[in-house]
Amino acid sequence: MEERKVDVAIIGSGSAGLYALGKVKPSGKSFVLINGGEAGTTCARVGCMPSKAIIQVAEDYHRRSIFGRYGIDGHQQMSIDTAEAMEHVQDLRDTFVDRVLSNSTDNMGEEFIEGYARFVEPNVLEVNGERIQADKIIIATGSTPIIPKAWKAFGDRLLTTDDFFEQEQLPSSMAVIGLGVIGLELGQSLHRLGVDVVGIDMAENIGGLSDPEVNKAAIEIIGKEYPMWLGAAVEISETESGKLLVTAGDNSATVDKVLVAMGRTPNLESLNLQATEIPLGDNGIPLYNPNTMQVAELPVFIAGDVDGERPLLHEAGDDGRIAGYNAVSDEVTAFRRKTPLNIVFCDPNICHIGVRFEELDPDTTAIGQIAFGPVGRALIMGKNKGLLRVYADKRSGKLLGCEMVAPKGENLAHLLNWAIEQQLTVGEVLQMPFYHPVIEEALQAALYDLYGKVETKNETPVTELIPL
Amino acid sequence: MEERKVDVAIIGSGSAGLYALGKVKPSGKSFVLINGGEAGTTCARVGCMPSKAIIQVAEDYHRRSIFGRYGIDGHQQMSIDTAEAMEHVQDLRDTFVDRVLSNSTDNMGEEFIEGYARFVEPNVLEVNGERIQADKIIIATGSTPIIPKAWKAFGDRLLTTDDFFEQEQLPSSMAVIGLGVIGLELGQSLHRLGVDVVGIDMAENIGGLSDPEVNKAAIEIIGKEYPMWLGAAVEISETESGKLLVTAGDNSATVDKVLVAMGRTPNLESLNLQATEIPLGDNGIPLYNPNTMQVAELPVFIAGDVDGERPLLHEAGDDGRIAGYNAVSDEVTAFRRKTPLNIVFCDPNICHIGVRFEELDPDTTAIGQIAFGPVGRALIMGKNKGLLRVYADKRSGKLLGCEMVAPKGENLAHLLNWAIEQQLTVGEVLQMPFYHPVIEEALQAALYDLYGKVETKNETPVTELIPL
Repeated sequence: MEERKVDVAIIGSGSAGLYALGKVKPSGKSFVLINGGEAGTTCARVGCMPSKAIIQVAEDYHRRSIFGRYGIDGHQQMSIDTAEAMEHVQDLRDTFVDRVLSNSTDNMGEEFIEGYARFVEPNVLEVNGERIQADKIIIATGSTPIIPKAWKAFGDRLLTTDDFFEQEQLPSSMAVIGLGVIGLELGQSLHRLGVDVVGIDMAENIGGLSDPEVNKAAIEIIGKEYPMWLGAAVEISETESGKLLVTAGDNSATVDKVLVAMGRTPNLESLNLQATEIPLGDNGIPLYNPNTMQVAELPVFIAGDVDGERPLLHEAGDDGRIAGYNAVSDEVTAFRRKTPLNIVFCDPNICHIGVRFEELDPDTTAIGQIAFGPVGRALIMGKNKGLLRVYADKRSGKLLGCEMVAPKGENLAHLLNWAIEQQLTVGEVLQMPFYHPVIEEALQAALYDLYGKVETKNETPVTELIPL
Repeated sequence: MEERKVDVAIIGSGSAGLYALGKVKPSGKSFVLINGGEAGTTCARVGCMPSKAIIQVAEDYHRRSIFGRYGIDGHQQMSIDTAEAMEHVQDLRDTFVDRVLSNSTDNMGEEFIEGYARFVEPNVLEVNGERIQADKIIIATGSTPIIPKAWKAFGDRLLTTDDFFEQEQLPSSMAVIGLGVIGLELGQSLHRLGVDVVGIDMAENIGGLSDPEVNKAAIEIIGKEYPMWLGAAVEISETESGKLLVTAGDNSATVDKVLVAMGRTPNLESLNLQATEIPLGDNGIPLYNPNTMQVAELPVFIAGDVDGERPLLHEAGDDGRIAGYNAVSDEVTAFRRKTPLNIVFCDPNICHIGVRFEELDPDTTAIGQIAFGPVGRALIMGKNKGLLRVYADKRSGKLLGCEMVAPKGENLAHLLNWAIEQQLTVGEVLQMPFYHPVIEEALQAALYDLYGKVETKNETPVTELIPL
């Protein structure tokens, strides 16, 4: 059998693998990049990008519901051609996938291998019958949507993001199981595009919210658009007409299709990890240090969705950078990870930043909040629904985190996340300019509320200003 | 004649006066608040708020132009009832004005005086025949739209923001003279609502842009919607049919109405400043220190639009806080002013932050930029037009300023403004989280471009990450 020797082998040419490559390539070390399955990143193919495209169409179409408020006529006669909408989504997706490929694996030559890699020895991989011996190995194989085994019998009436964006037509009715990021983004969009949608989750919270007040507001606001069944396990069975009967607690509905959005599982099976000394956690995922991305003390690194944490593009990027840098360095460097930033692009956006509500110590934490009802700009936008709650250390006034369901939450989230990264206090943030009338003033109002509850105040006679 | 003695007299109950009141009232000092003319702030009555309301309607209606791209049918049959749109704008405006009044002068009792104040002695005002002797006086009388005297003959065919929002119908054609904030915001909105608009400015730059590249991009993008005549003085004459003939350079058009948006002039005339020792600058505005808001060494302070600088609500707020605080304090404190933040809410937004391009030293400045064409999220939004240029000190890498014409520029502007307030370097900002896919990634791309051009790099082996 042929054997190739390289300094670094990267398994997986998704986002994390490509970011790792970005550190390996300029190092001058020899390498291979191996990819099994479809080319293109999860993000561009079936994740962030096509989901934002369908959200945009759905939001534009949904917007007609407020046109009557101010003299825009003819909106009652508007309709949506969902086949055309899906084609638009697919066109955009193809653009994004092509862009990724042309900037990465296209024309890479023999350093790129298409095929599934499996370990045959701790530092030897086999791909397409070729043995590759690598001093360092980076595992960046990504993840796959979870479908409970018993449901596989329902065949193509069950969709995940892997096949959803391939649909040429939308069904007339659909259950969305799982109300995390994907379930909320697609469920609401499908409803807005005319699909009869029900959202279902065994949990009582949606979009990963842990603050009960924000969660309640989110369920109230979004749940007004389409029904949500929370807190009961779901069962699916087939009806005589070949449709699917979906039941959860006392609720049931007959639907054409089910979108399964119950999370993703790391792609580890085909790697044959038993041929290595890689120690696995209880969840079957290699034990690794998130600051170095090194697996145990081995010359193995891991990055991206496969590591089971922070399944977000910008975090996969950092994973890949750290893994790639450490794989080509003599010593392993530990890096500080960024303040958590999570955005669900439903409408209003759901965001959580920094320390989660459920992780706070109630004795040492102060909470400020704003409901969006009276927020001027939100009112003008016709989007004055939401709740933002921001947390700080009561004694020092340092910002800790935030959970929100908010119009333009994605932008507020960046502003606040960067303030937390800077370790700013509530008082310090109140010294920043807030223009008028902008949605950022909602954050300002929540911060004023919070400022009244923390012990550390600005050492200036005017809160908002710093003496010269 | 009656004479009242107070510690502080505030002239003007607009935004600046009310912020000043917010510092005077809790001090326990005696005071009066005097307001001549209409109650309610410029912002709520004729400024920020009603303009945002009409922009929102116009933007929603304009959005139909891209519906055809993705299957939203019926948009060709949409129409706009501009009378209904204006009524909506007026309703919202009334809400905002009522909100201001009910939180301020309503039910204030004898401490609130309606009438025009004039100085009769350096520390004595006369209002409605009453003499008010005040230890400290705060001038916050606001500003009035400029109309060249010769044009007053055209009567109600000439509009300013003072009367524009009172219109029940929109004219079929209109010239907008002045392409600063108001001219750009209202001109584009009027065009989008079906008015035949031409925008005219004697200058070659629009929206206060000083960066020629950004200005060029802004003119190209916005000028595609409706004609702009730049760089020539405008003349107006009456046609035989009673319409107005507007001429600038080689261009001319006959229009129903002209919106004059040539700036605002401080309301100083009725104050009778000659009865005081207040020194005036060449522009006729009292000479004051922007860090203390004190006029010369006198017990007189000035705040808001009347001071001729930073005619923005958040700056008027700071003006008022400083003036109010200093008016009730034994010593005058100087405060640092905030990093400039300017937003024109046209589409795309025009923003300038921090040091202006025209103020930069080209020898010591590095410039990074991004054109929005390929920006993923902007592409999805159908708004991938714009240019953002960000400036840093070449040696230290410290961010200095930015000019942009950009989708969601208002949000990018806050993020970048706060980074400048924190005195961050380009490299430090690149260590912040940028989610995906968000418009903030455009800023990230411009910062990477800039990072390559500054001398101070992050002291870390991976630019985006800080070693533990």
